[in-house]
Amino acid sequence: MARRPRRKAEETREDILSMAEMLFRERGYVAVSIADIAGALNMSPANVFKHFRSKVALVDAIAGRHLDNAAERFIPLDQDMPAKEQLLRFVLRLLEGHLQDIQKSPYIFEMVLSTIEAKLEAGNRYRACIEEKLGEIIRKGMAEGRYHCRDPEHAAHTVADVLACVLHPILIVRDDKETLVRRAGEIVGFVDAALQNSAC
Amino acid sequence: MARRPRRKAEETREDILSMAEMLFRERGYVAVSIADIAGALNMSPANVFKHFRSKVALVDAIAGRHLDNAAERFIPLDQDMPAKEQLLRFVLRLLEGHLQDIQKSPYIFEMVLSTIEAKLEAGNRYRACIEEKLGEIIRKGMAEGRYHCRDPEHAAHTVADVLACVLHPILIVRDDKETLVRRAGEIVGFVDAALQNSAC
Repeated sequence: MARRPRRKAEETREDILSMAEMLFRERGYVAVSIADIAGALNMSPANVFKHFRSKVALVDAIAGRHLDNAAERFIPLDQDMPAKEQLLRFVLRLLEGHLQDIQKSPYIFEMVLSTIEAKLEAGNRYRACIEEKLGEIIRKGMAEGRYHCRDPEHAAHTVADVLACVLHPILIVRDDKETLVRRAGEIVGFVDAALQNSAC
Repeated sequence: MARRPRRKAEETREDILSMAEMLFRERGYVAVSIADIAGALNMSPANVFKHFRSKVALVDAIAGRHLDNAAERFIPLDQDMPAKEQLLRFVLRLLEGHLQDIQKSPYIFEMVLSTIEAKLEAGNRYRACIEEKLGEIIRKGMAEGRYHCRDPEHAAHTVADVLACVLHPILIVRDDKETLVRRAGEIVGFVDAALQNSAC
């Protein structure tokens, strides 16, 4: 019972996030204010501000709730598969996830634009998960004798940059899935070619 | 003298574009309507619509005016330079140009977002110029015996995709120039490594 107030604060936080997402979906990210969210929850804006000090903090929390729950994108890959195949499976898994994110949250573009100069914690954590998985795949490729990187962590960082063209929402929204899957195959082929070179 | 009306139409078109850019810079892309642009020029909205049937058509023309005049980004590179060095110089030249574009036209992000699902002609032409230059550099690298691509045009297309992480406005705006120049060097090193592989 001593924990009740804390639990209540967490519930309030979750309520705010769910309502914010619902309103963003209905009216768009830019059109909805903190006051609108408070009003829809019969709360005072001050109460919402107590939990989220800015709309950017709200975006960070919404993105965090989604991305931290996207654990299925990072479950282990079949270790019998060669590294190149693992890389392709992983990239296609992420691409599929991102296309679903875009469909479920069409306001994602307004959110990206509004927070474009902010470094969101949720985004950093998600990127770190991607780099970690890429690092595992690269080390697997080195164990196979296929890849010859001097620094697998650094290579994973560069590969994550390179993959933007098939993973970043802004860069994938205009293309159909077939095009994106083909592009993912080409980019993975390119990455696989680079990682075979010890200069990489 | 017979050409007078045609000349006048071209001048009107240019006036509309210049005024649109000025208003976008002052008030942001989203906030400015075709009617606002017409009003500021003492024209009827119908007259503006005669030249640009939508705001997307206006964006395409504005982007075209800038990008078609960015010819200095595509002037020949020093042919005594090895292909890898040419690639780096070209990428840094584009990066510099894009950073200037962002500074001169901060409304570029709203424009990108508003036209995100449209394929702008101006963007396609610019991308084609980039791919052509990349193709030249790749063929130069093949002549040097450094690169071993089966299809240089196709490789140029993939390299243009890969370069998004150091060239796309949305992906570069949050980083400082030093970070971007370092990233450009890393990506060029990665691309150079891939192009040496005949599997590429």
